[in-house]
Amino acid sequence: MATFMDVHHGMNGITQDQLAQAHQADLAIEKDEHVHFMQAWADPESGTVYCLSEAPDAEAVQRVHERAGHRADEIHAVPFKV
Amino acid sequence: MATFMDVHHGMNGITQDQLAQAHQADLAIEKDEHVHFMQAWADPESGTVYCLSEAPDAEAVQRVHERAGHRADEIHAVPFKV
Repeated sequence: MATFMDVHHGMNGITQDQLAQAHQADLAIEKDEHVHFMQAWADPESGTVYCLSEAPDAEAVQRVHERAGHRADEIHAVPFKV
Repeated sequence: MATFMDVHHGMNGITQDQLAQAHQADLAIEKDEHVHFMQAWADPESGTVYCLSEAPDAEAVQRVHERAGHRADEIHAVPFKV
């Protein structure tokens, strides 16, 4: 398992409820791909959402996000953290 | 206080030690600006570093990063989180 930060652009105006619903949609199916979405943060002004996950690989992260209806624009493995 | 995600580009090849040292440099002076850097993640391959902080405003985040020698390329307020 590795840690990933993925980024969604164009989410301008996203609300706390929409962020929570999108996160719930990921959580509902993540086990199929052995992914766990841990945290997410949204900036409604620039339309940016960051998701932190543990997953076997970036493709598994994307498969969950795609099935949940919100494809990520970038997915970065983040092997280092403090 | 608000939550911010800032992003540094061009950090290709960054190591765990360098990430830890950069984070320590922030922690050493953050109180001057009433900022707290909570977590950071690095992708050495794309050269991207993400820092999560609590701060009075984005300018305070940037002042700490600048004094520590690593200006952020983007700073996003992230009022929503899950």
